[in-house]
Amino acid sequence: MGRMGKNHLELLEEYSNFANVKAVCDLSFDNKTEDLLKKYKVKDKYFDYKDLLADALIDVVYVCTDIDSLCEISMNAIKANKHTFCESNLSKSPKDIKKLMEVLKTKNLIFHVGLNKRFDNNFRSVKDVLVSGKIGEAHIIKITSRDPDLPSLDYLKKSGGLFFDMSVDDFDMIRYLSSFEVEEVYARGGVLIDEMVKEYDDIDTAVLSLKLSNGTLCLIDNSRRATYGYDQRVEIHGSLGMVTTSNELQSKAKIYTTYGVIAEKPKYLIIQRYKQAYIIQNEYFFTSILNNKVSLSSCNDSLQALYIALAAKKSFEQNRSVKISEVKHN
Amino acid sequence: MGRMGKNHLELLEEYSNFANVKAVCDLSFDNKTEDLLKKYKVKDKYFDYKDLLADALIDVVYVCTDIDSLCEISMNAIKANKHTFCESNLSKSPKDIKKLMEVLKTKNLIFHVGLNKRFDNNFRSVKDVLVSGKIGEAHIIKITSRDPDLPSLDYLKKSGGLFFDMSVDDFDMIRYLSSFEVEEVYARGGVLIDEMVKEYDDIDTAVLSLKLSNGTLCLIDNSRRATYGYDQRVEIHGSLGMVTTSNELQSKAKIYTTYGVIAEKPKYLIIQRYKQAYIIQNEYFFTSILNNKVSLSSCNDSLQALYIALAAKKSFEQNRSVKISEVKHN
Amino acid sequence: MGRMGKNHLELLEEYSNFANVKAVCDLSFDNKTEDLLKKYKVKDKYFDYKDLLADALIDVVYVCTDIDSLCEISMNAIKANKHTFCESNLSKSPKDIKKLMEVLKTKNLIFHVGLNKRFDNNFRSVKDVLVSGKIGEAHIIKITSRDPDLPSLDYLKKSGGLFFDMSVDDFDMIRYLSSFEVEEVYARGGVLIDEMVKEYDDIDTAVLSLKLSNGTLCLIDNSRRATYGYDQRVEIHGSLGMVTTSNELQSKAKIYTTYGVIAEKPKYLIIQRYKQAYIIQNEYFFTSILNNKVSLSSCNDSLQALYIALAAKKSFEQNRSVKISEVKHN
Amino acid sequence: MGRMGKNHLELLEEYSNFANVKAVCDLSFDNKTEDLLKKYKVKDKYFDYKDLLADALIDVVYVCTDIDSLCEISMNAIKANKHTFCESNLSKSPKDIKKLMEVLKTKNLIFHVGLNKRFDNNFRSVKDVLVSGKIGEAHIIKITSRDPDLPSLDYLKKSGGLFFDMSVDDFDMIRYLSSFEVEEVYARGGVLIDEMVKEYDDIDTAVLSLKLSNGTLCLIDNSRRATYGYDQRVEIHGSLGMVTTSNELQSKAKIYTTYGVIAEKPKYLIIQRYKQAYIIQNEYFFTSILNNKVSLSSCNDSLQALYIALAAKKSFEQNRSVKISEVKHN
Repeated sequence: MGRMGKNHLELLEEYSNFANVKAVCDLSFDNKTEDLLKKYKVKDKYFDYKDLLADALIDVVYVCTDIDSLCEISMNAIKANKHTFCESNLSKSPKDIKKLMEVLKTKNLIFHVGLNKRFDNNFRSVKDVLVSGKIGEAHIIKITSRDPDLPSLDYLKKSGGLFFDMSVDDFDMIRYLSSFEVEEVYARGGVLIDEMVKEYDDIDTAVLSLKLSNGTLCLIDNSRRATYGYDQRVEIHGSLGMVTTSNELQSKAKIYTTYGVIAEKPKYLIIQRYKQAYIIQNEYFFTSILNNKVSLSSCNDSLQALYIALAAKKSFEQNRSVKISEVKHN
Repeated sequence: MGRMGKNHLELLEEYSNFANVKAVCDLSFDNKTEDLLKKYKVKDKYFDYKDLLADALIDVVYVCTDIDSLCEISMNAIKANKHTFCESNLSKSPKDIKKLMEVLKTKNLIFHVGLNKRFDNNFRSVKDVLVSGKIGEAHIIKITSRDPDLPSLDYLKKSGGLFFDMSVDDFDMIRYLSSFEVEEVYARGGVLIDEMVKEYDDIDTAVLSLKLSNGTLCLIDNSRRATYGYDQRVEIHGSLGMVTTSNELQSKAKIYTTYGVIAEKPKYLIIQRYKQAYIIQNEYFFTSILNNKVSLSSCNDSLQALYIALAAKKSFEQNRSVKISEVKHN
Repeated sequence: MGRMGKNHLELLEEYSNFANVKAVCDLSFDNKTEDLLKKYKVKDKYFDYKDLLADALIDVVYVCTDIDSLCEISMNAIKANKHTFCESNLSKSPKDIKKLMEVLKTKNLIFHVGLNKRFDNNFRSVKDVLVSGKIGEAHIIKITSRDPDLPSLDYLKKSGGLFFDMSVDDFDMIRYLSSFEVEEVYARGGVLIDEMVKEYDDIDTAVLSLKLSNGTLCLIDNSRRATYGYDQRVEIHGSLGMVTTSNELQSKAKIYTTYGVIAEKPKYLIIQRYKQAYIIQNEYFFTSILNNKVSLSSCNDSLQALYIALAAKKSFEQNRSVKISEVKHN
Repeated sequence: MGRMGKNHLELLEEYSNFANVKAVCDLSFDNKTEDLLKKYKVKDKYFDYKDLLADALIDVVYVCTDIDSLCEISMNAIKANKHTFCESNLSKSPKDIKKLMEVLKTKNLIFHVGLNKRFDNNFRSVKDVLVSGKIGEAHIIKITSRDPDLPSLDYLKKSGGLFFDMSVDDFDMIRYLSSFEVEEVYARGGVLIDEMVKEYDDIDTAVLSLKLSNGTLCLIDNSRRATYGYDQRVEIHGSLGMVTTSNELQSKAKIYTTYGVIAEKPKYLIIQRYKQAYIIQNEYFFTSILNNKVSLSSCNDSLQALYIALAAKKSFEQNRSVKISEVKHN
């Protein structure tokens, strides 16, 4: 019942005619959470997730924990025969993901990894344009992905590091947009925002250069702090033209004064920015369950993005371009 | 259960923890509507609205009919002690609205007129900027309000005419944004889109020049057909600067090719464009009921907008500027 | 050698291979002007314009005075057989313009009225789009035309009033864009910026509603003060779509901070904003002389715009819509 | 008298009160060039540039040849005591530039390298914002620089290759904007547009990752073909915010139809896009001569950019990040 757990509880209200949240699980519940549970009429509270998984009336589980426990809990959810929505990338260990994929093969369950940006209207439109052929073959793909601010120390400690926590979603976006695999990555990074992140052996700013299997060249830039809001942009330059997408602003109001022309800032919080994407993702997840269809963002997507993150880390540590094949033995 | 009835049924799903739709009423129900009722688990169907009003378990009623019946049904809803949400302006007769206001005084009920644009994030931001003083006093207010396409003949027949069906919302927007009353209006119009509208003694295009009680000058332009989508813009030019708002596009994707730079069109349907406004409006309505507060868009707002529409019609018919005071005897 | 005289002196430097400024005339010359004359190597200074007109080596004359003397000087320039460029609208008296047109008929001279906006790249593009048929027939034409600030008292006194000094260019723009004549105008105005303008029996803010001979409806809004710069926009809504043009900003730099997204202001001065238009206009003027072609902005254009201004003034004074035919006897 | 020679001839017309073009030099002159010389009243034609340099009446020389001869001709111009404007980067050999710098030390002459983008209003505004401190310290600098189309085979052969002909200007831009030196570069590239460029051992698409001496991370993407026009954008993400600049469009007209919202393309030709920059650059060059000031874009700027290009080439060939210090021995 952290930020994402609460987010999903609220979003599921939209589908109350289809599904109701019967139970939630956390180590403890503060007053604010209790109020939410009342508001959304959630019946049961659990302190051990295994008790929740034992509830036979529950068909679907959302796992919204840290990267350290996501994979294990997800594994147990599958074993308990629950359709599972795993919020964000599963693990830093390819082996663990592969194990989960093995078990999954034996079950007739929908397992969805919450790569929510895949369900964003703007990114979907960009992909649609590429697929339509309007801009020809992709030559250069550029992603700008910057958080509005450094997360808490607490979060940072458990995040897995910038490449695994932040860039990893951009790696997935490149795979999603291009429909090609990444072959090689070169990563530069630095601690430019706050010396504190050095304590966790992490960086707060990075730029990455990637090459896809078809020769497309890609650039990503990541920062933990964009004072002006959550900066999420994509650009594809192709043989026949270019397609871009820009940020969603907090409103379309523009003020013209002697100081200049002032527009509103981009939306700030991930939940605010990607609200529609979360709703569409839920709809997709439920439809997959009802129609027994394969999920659009699968364990394999998570695994491939993880390989790129592992290569990026190695590249940064050794200051050289690293082929993805170098880390596939993991 | 027309377009707006269905719209409200879907939107109310968002508040399922607070309120459930128990019953709907229409003269007949087609299969599509039946499916919706099943989806949203609506228990009761009525063919006579008075039967619905007689249901003691119902606390709140949404009236979503034509301008010819809105006021009468609303009156009966009030008499039946229901909190009432009246979708769009009440009537073409000031007397009928005044009668309703008289009855309302004797009741402790929330009566809300669905002036949904008042709850739109963009227009609210524009008003906030004016109120903040950032652009000083309003000198010129401009509203562009154009439908994506001519409505059906059937709709047109019952619409009450362009000034009462379309411009009336812009009149309300001017009152809402400026916090001043309109004193005088000059209306020009024509049949430029389709000769057919002449059959209903209507026009399809209009431009209006208004003067407010504080001297602010206003311009409105209306068209029944903007092929590129639902065009809804506002601009206030003040003593210290200007504030504008532009249309919401279908996505932020932009394509650059040899043909030019192609952005997506503005959102097309009113329900699509104002979805967030409808949701916020519902929240506001429910909060008013819970806290017994006065509604932000009241019968009086509807009455004042109606006076301006009556003056606009007179102005158009007589080709002269008409003072609102000339039609207040109605 | 006021602002516009100096402007033209500088712009003519661009055509030094074609034409040289031999002489200028003014009632007196300050140091700054003397410096300019030195810089641009102007040989002769005159204090009486008739002396300048008597110089047989001069082929072309630019008349850049107030509206009170423009027509008379222009008349004498024609009589002296000079090709003449008259900066801005000729007169407030239709009779005087007609007299000038009579004399002009007897001469084989190019007479150009400096309706410089006709030569602006943006407005030309808008007209091109309309002519191309891409947006179908024009239904609504809207012009926003606001000066960055109130002119000096001195200027205001000689300006002829808002309708003759400012709106008149927008009347011409409507004729230029639409290729139709204005049939009727309704003008509202007020003193909203500075009470001082009342001393000159003038207004500082106006909105106008016009009707063209083909039924197109037009709106113009004028203000003497747009703190954010020179605001010059045009919009045509047609049967198949819309075309707009927006302001030229001082640079394309945009700053994103916690305060919002800040773009630069529109260009401030008329000379800055329309520099390219002035250059293109000169080129057009010279080409007309060389090829003995009719000017693209003629005395008749000036006369027609004047009629609309006279009707606008009458409309404002009598608070009624005035047909252009009512003032054609002048 | 190639494209750039002609460009400068035309631009110098703007300064005819200050300087006149007395002579030009080329191996031959076609009719079109002869016409230009007549139009701009150029007296002398030379076929050997040394004859031109021998003309004692000539004070200033513009060198507009290929990268193979620029440095030698410039050297001889200096030796002939001419103020020299060298159009584009001097050479592919650091030694040659250093020799020229040695000779220059012994002369009291202005030597200007035509890094014209430094004089562009938009890029200057971006730099001004960074210098102002509004966005804090630079963390990430991004440059998009794409030509509208592949140059002719003939041009390509003499261009020196993508890194020396195209990226080199972006390297200079990074130095100009940041006021820091580049320490390290990683370059990826490919032949994605036309196999033909392989014949010249060249590439047509590249992405580069750079690190500055202060830790700032930079990304550049280059393409020889952007079908939609000359794409020239810059973005700086800093500790307190971001500044960006976008392309200049051919006009501000926007068309809204059922096909979408269509804006004009960016300006296409370098001369069209950077016309104002060339004019300002000339003004700056002349002012430097008159006031005996150091040039804003010097031989050293050209030398430093060359080092980065040499490192980029090495990086691309060896697929590793290359420190600039590795190529400084050249």
